Amino acid sequence: MTSTRIRMTPDDRREQLLGLGVHLLATRSLDELSIDVLAEEAGISRGLLYHYFGNKQDFHRAVVRRAADELIEVTAPSSDEDPLQQLMLSLGAYVDYVTENYQGYVSLVRAASTDESLREIYEQARATLTDRLFDVAGREQLAALGITDSPATRLMVRGWSALTEEVVISWVRTPHGVSRDELLQRLAQGLVALVQEPAG
Amino acid sequence: MTSTRIRMTPDDRREQLLGLGVHLLATRSLDELSIDVLAEEAGISRGLLYHYFGNKQDFHRAVVRRAADELIEVTAPSSDEDPLQQLMLSLGAYVDYVTENYQGYVSLVRAASTDESLREIYEQARATLTDRLFDVAGREQLAALGITDSPATRLMVRGWSALTEEVVISWVRTPHGVSRDELLQRLAQGLVALVQEPAG
Repeated sequence: MTSTRIRMTPDDRREQLLGLGVHLLATRSLDELSIDVLAEEAGISRGLLYHYFGNKQDFHRAVVRRAADELIEVTAPSSDEDPLQQLMLSLGAYVDYVTENYQGYVSLVRAASTDESLREIYEQARATLTDRLFDVAGREQLAALGITDSPATRLMVRGWSALTEEVVISWVRTPHGVSRDELLQRLAQGLVALVQEPAG
Repeated sequence: MTSTRIRMTPDDRREQLLGLGVHLLATRSLDELSIDVLAEEAGISRGLLYHYFGNKQDFHRAVVRRAADELIEVTAPSSDEDPLQQLMLSLGAYVDYVTENYQGYVSLVRAASTDESLREIYEQARATLTDRLFDVAGREQLAALGITDSPATRLMVRGWSALTEEVVISWVRTPHGVSRDELLQRLAQGLVALVQEPAG
């Protein structure tokens, strides 16, 4: 116990530590985010952190789940815009999120390929991000763009979300003179084209 | 030495073993493809296999490199078709390849995320598959579709290749009533739309 420690409930303390973990993950990979790093940044003992998070893997899971929740929240569509505008806003929030959390985000995408429990969180988040296109509000918006919900549409939306991830990660690394606006327009335009019925 | 062994040059033998490795990888994951499995299928000793391939990791690298070469070969565009037709044929060959090599292909995509040397082979193959859109012959074809080569175009093509991989893997697992033809049309149509200049 040090005199500078602020007295908090265990829940508040855990929340604070999770927030700090997400903040730290923004600029480092999952591998670089250890209990030691968190202990030092939070100014509390490793023992206490193990008390809150069990082990490193559980700690990573908790941080990644929290980061995914934040991504889902910041990209949530507002309902008072026209559909295309809403899509652009949502995409813009995603681009800004990846920009600000680049190191951690890329390491998570990689880790999700081989770590079963991280993959689950990652895929659930991605499903949430794309499936809301098909919830009640989303479906009205899609209809306004001339798009109907079908297995083929869902398949293409799933692919578009992989495309978006790949393109945004590449763009943050090297924008190659493509502006944020052009990026958003191309992604939005791509989605609309991909879910159209085939012409032939 | 057994009496059934056919006398081959070391190069021929290595080729034969690589071919067998690629064949075995079609229906199992990289993890399931061991020197032991290959030895049993080839009817030769593990010792001899270590002689040819060094260790398991080198063996995996050699098999994956060979599999990538085959994928690049079977999807090579022929030059006597119109551009869209050529794209559809190439895509069709890719879809058939993933269908026939599903287990190994999916495990490779996953392994490439964390294994540095496999990632290199994987990314090189993917770059070859997409970059040929921009070689001399490809550029003419693109021009015929009204598409110019630019950093933005390349960025979107890179994204489209991630989309195609995601969509085709999903589709092979569960076609959801989407026919092979519709799949190809949607993917080709998507590429053309994604590389157009933004409308707005």
